[in-house]
Amino acid sequence: MKNNTEIKVRGYHLDVYGHVNNARYLEFIEEARWELFDAYLGTLAAKGYSFFVVNININYKSPATIGDTIEIASCITRFGGKSCTLKQKMTKKGTDITVVEADVTFVIAGTEGRALPVEGDIREMLEPFAA
Amino acid sequence: MKNNTEIKVRGYHLDVYGHVNNARYLEFIEEARWELFDAYLGTLAAKGYSFFVVNININYKSPATIGDTIEIASCITRFGGKSCTLKQKMTKKGTDITVVEADVTFVIAGTEGRALPVEGDIREMLEPFAA
Amino acid sequence: MKNNTEIKVRGYHLDVYGHVNNARYLEFIEEARWELFDAYLGTLAAKGYSFFVVNININYKSPATIGDTIEIASCITRFGGKSCTLKQKMTKKGTDITVVEADVTFVIAGTEGRALPVEGDIREMLEPFAA
Amino acid sequence: MKNNTEIKVRGYHLDVYGHVNNARYLEFIEEARWELFDAYLGTLAAKGYSFFVVNININYKSPATIGDTIEIASCITRFGGKSCTLKQKMTKKGTDITVVEADVTFVIAGTEGRALPVEGDIREMLEPFAA
Repeated sequence: MKNNTEIKVRGYHLDVYGHVNNARYLEFIEEARWELFDAYLGTLAAKGYSFFVVNININYKSPATIGDTIEIASCITRFGGKSCTLKQKMTKKGTDITVVEADVTFVIAGTEGRALPVEGDIREMLEPFAA
Repeated sequence: MKNNTEIKVRGYHLDVYGHVNNARYLEFIEEARWELFDAYLGTLAAKGYSFFVVNININYKSPATIGDTIEIASCITRFGGKSCTLKQKMTKKGTDITVVEADVTFVIAGTEGRALPVEGDIREMLEPFAA
Repeated sequence: MKNNTEIKVRGYHLDVYGHVNNARYLEFIEEARWELFDAYLGTLAAKGYSFFVVNININYKSPATIGDTIEIASCITRFGGKSCTLKQKMTKKGTDITVVEADVTFVIAGTEGRALPVEGDIREMLEPFAA
Repeated sequence: MKNNTEIKVRGYHLDVYGHVNNARYLEFIEEARWELFDAYLGTLAAKGYSFFVVNININYKSPATIGDTIEIASCITRFGGKSCTLKQKMTKKGTDITVVEADVTFVIAGTEGRALPVEGDIREMLEPFAA
């Protein structure tokens, strides 16, 4: 898995239950995707392609709370005709405790906003992230 | 389906794509759940039960943007042994355009934080939300 | 004061202290400004004017927490040469407890993004919100 | 000034104007305060003291947008009887462009939640952050 994004959990990430709020985890895994783009996928935007999320299936396994440092690793687990699935796993740093595990299904769209086949240069760019 | 929560989409709900951000939709459907509790489930908290989300499977169908008014309706589509699934459907008001559709799987926990069987008074309280 | 925006405080608005987070209050008062625009200032956008906040001075007086319903009222307390100040006061509904009080200084910009003098049609549109 | 917190601006930080949203800047400067605590003020919490913000006066000078890396530096500019003011300055990394500049007035409270005089060990802990 690529891209070990690290985030320290702060007071403003929590909610009434004293844990990171459900919605905030989605920002955390989005942050990890932006780091992935920065590091490996600059050409994607340069070529006029966009990345759109069409489904997120997220398992809340063990809540993170203040003081925790979490890590997010990601890899593509499915290459479909016009969509792919990126698995994103968040663990507490230095442990094997899974906080959340999300399957993020996305499409790559061209300038007209339509999902493109996962072929040619698109497939090539994504291939290095295969599980 | 119960509880037609209404939200007007504002400038601060959007992201770089000019659409409501993926994470913000989760706040919107959480808002709808709080309204549901307020209206129908006061006894749940009064009895010392808590509601914990264990999985969200969300389909991003058609993006909402500034000026849109969205509506969220919810119903329970599955009663399991120790968990239930609440379907939450967000549409653009006055249209049949689905913005997102989410299956939210939750457990009811007692004071010790453990998931309880969906039986007796718990089942009774949740029954009115069946599809 | 105009525009009594009402918001119910939810679990996802809170932070580690069990109170509404400092940043979230800014979303609440922004919500109140959007409602103000919807109700009274549609012509502002229609004429190509934009509203930009240049300073916020916010007093955190008494924290709001889950279950509270808060109300936000707003009025312009200063008309300057090229900027105005909008006072926004948030109270707990049905009490005289002030939660936060903010002075929001803004400019009205034209299509080129430059602050315009608060004169003519701009002054006219804003006048009804004078304290 | 201490504590050069660095944040990369992402798509989910922006709003309808394509800039970082007003409220989000408050999360950014709160992040910088948490880093400050982690690095220098662990004893504060250990002694049972809490840090409460009572006022934020924030100047929005030059908007940050996607791709920007911002830096936040902080120092105490005022020691009062029962409150202090922390200046937090956010700049675009590698430039002298100020994004926002905020004066954050805070109190240190004891276990009973009351503001304590800025004296003795409290003053000592805060002194290193003087301008």
